[in-house]
Amino acid sequence: MTEAIVLFAHGARDPEWAGPVRRLAALLESRAPAVRARPAFLEFMTPDLDAAVDELVAEGVRRILVVPVFLAQGGHLKRDVPQQVAAAARRHPDCSLILAKAVGEDDRVLAAMGEFALTELAAGDG
Amino acid sequence: MTEAIVLFAHGARDPEWAGPVRRLAALLESRAPAVRARPAFLEFMTPDLDAAVDELVAEGVRRILVVPVFLAQGGHLKRDVPQQVAAAARRHPDCSLILAKAVGEDDRVLAAMGEFALTELAAGDG
Repeated sequence: MTEAIVLFAHGARDPEWAGPVRRLAALLESRAPAVRARPAFLEFMTPDLDAAVDELVAEGVRRILVVPVFLAQGGHLKRDVPQQVAAAARRHPDCSLILAKAVGEDDRVLAAMGEFALTELAAGDG
Repeated sequence: MTEAIVLFAHGARDPEWAGPVRRLAALLESRAPAVRARPAFLEFMTPDLDAAVDELVAEGVRRILVVPVFLAQGGHLKRDVPQQVAAAARRHPDCSLILAKAVGEDDRVLAAMGEFALTELAAGDG
């Protein structure tokens, strides 16, 4: 079964903002070549979640994990995002859609942020 | 010399949004007990950067690393945040203020996000 990960981020007016999301997609495809990894955005940038899911289903993907590339579970992740995922699931009953928690809620991600902060602090010392 | 890390995040209306930022501050203080780690927010939540820096300087801190807990270098990090850090530095000439890049631009953080996504994808398999 062909699987995919949609990296669903907020989006911003500045095109450079999408850089880390695109690098994360490339990293996932290099780590897991059988898995398709695609960015999608809530605002300001394209594709939106609908377009990203429709394209993956058209390519034959039958299982999609939606990973919110958000720091925390705020209003967007409590309301808009589950609704959009549910709507996409209704439109594609032959594809399984799963919504993960926000990346920033994961302990490994927080630990990596902590490593980064302490490395930067030490870099300027002495 | 007493050092501190200010974890500068966007903020949101939902109080739960600050959870990962507060957990990251606690993690840093447990990993580096000599370093003070404090959250600060651009919008919606308190303290703002000024209040966090003023309080740390009043406590005797003379070197502060400001770590943007943002996914990417968008408009806020190109304009508002450097201006706020520069203004705080002018107000406290006896304290060194350094601005790091956004946590989401760091390869370790992206790798941890990738680990999280692949673990979640595998968790639902089979």
